[in-house]
Amino acid sequence: MGFFITFEGIEGCGKSTQLRRAAERLTREGYDVVITREPGGCPIADAIRAILLDADNSAMVPLAELLLYAAARAQHVAEVIGPALREGKIVLCDRFTDSTLAYQGYGRQLDRELIGQLNTLAAGDIRPHLTLVLDCPVEVGLGRAMARINAASTAREERFEQESRLFHERIRDGFLQLAAAEAGRFLVVDGSGGIEETEDLVMTSILPRLPRR
Amino acid sequence: MGFFITFEGIEGCGKSTQLRRAAERLTREGYDVVITREPGGCPIADAIRAILLDADNSAMVPLAELLLYAAARAQHVAEVIGPALREGKIVLCDRFTDSTLAYQGYGRQLDRELIGQLNTLAAGDIRPHLTLVLDCPVEVGLGRAMARINAASTAREERFEQESRLFHERIRDGFLQLAAAEAGRFLVVDGSGGIEETEDLVMTSILPRLPRR
Repeated sequence: MGFFITFEGIEGCGKSTQLRRAAERLTREGYDVVITREPGGCPIADAIRAILLDADNSAMVPLAELLLYAAARAQHVAEVIGPALREGKIVLCDRFTDSTLAYQGYGRQLDRELIGQLNTLAAGDIRPHLTLVLDCPVEVGLGRAMARINAASTAREERFEQESRLFHERIRDGFLQLAAAEAGRFLVVDGSGGIEETEDLVMTSILPRLPRR
Repeated sequence: MGFFITFEGIEGCGKSTQLRRAAERLTREGYDVVITREPGGCPIADAIRAILLDADNSAMVPLAELLLYAAARAQHVAEVIGPALREGKIVLCDRFTDSTLAYQGYGRQLDRELIGQLNTLAAGDIRPHLTLVLDCPVEVGLGRAMARINAASTAREERFEQESRLFHERIRDGFLQLAAAEAGRFLVVDGSGGIEETEDLVMTSILPRLPRR
């Protein structure tokens, strides 16, 4: 059995950058690494992702959104994450079940018990061995995310980043509450500093927890 | 509150034809009628339908499929069926929750309790007042469906109609079991005859049950 690490946090917290860097570092160290992301990670889940992130779909009701995340996750776990872990690989995933709890539960204030049930249904017996929350103040994260959007002109696809400041505060708070409630699985890493500085914090968190080769 | 009628049955049972004819008849009688279908019925659910019916998605796992049906239904109920019923309309829907039980539960043999829970979650308090099962032998239905596919050359999109005869026998049996278990809501109509003959049976089933105008 491999080792499953999820990277979580608000928009602009640096998790995607840090995930790529961690993958490069671990690959150089000789580990067999798979990187993936949610929603998406395989063609069917990517098709679902396109529906979720399409700004034209603003009429989507919260329950449909929640069920689409669960559907994408069920496919991704069955097709990508589960097989890679059974092959002994280290899987690094950009967002997973905790993002659904933080965004839909704490952010949109949907029933967290229902979200937990759908997370468990979709992920089955696949649970992260380690979850890193890249934490930073909302204004820092949104500032980075807006800079990226302006640079890439992909604003239209990024429905969530138009949401209110308060919404993102609830999400940040949600991640911190989830981490506090399950301290054995979570590590909160300060993501407000520079990229190299944060990378050192991330690698210091990961390396001692990896299974021996 | 309006009146919600669902049309169910195996491929080629004639339900879509009969639904259209019933809508025309009821409209002529002065009723305010909305026709719709599942999966689909609104833009977001139609996008989900496209993923479900795409023959390229043969890697889809049963759980992801089930969750996609639930997501499409949640959106369809919230956006189309619920509002139409609250406006007092008669809603005729081509397939609904019973198709999920018959196809995924009896056909694919997934956990029917789980399917029931997801049906209830997605449909909320919207339940059909009347469900017509257009029943015919599998060889009759598949014969009609194959003729239609050959005529329209849409075979590629119709993943389900390639399934085995046994699978469709289980689905037919599933619809009949569902009807027997809830006789107050269901009516089984013989769909093996001609279109006009079946239409008479359908209208005789519907008209006495409609609320008085």
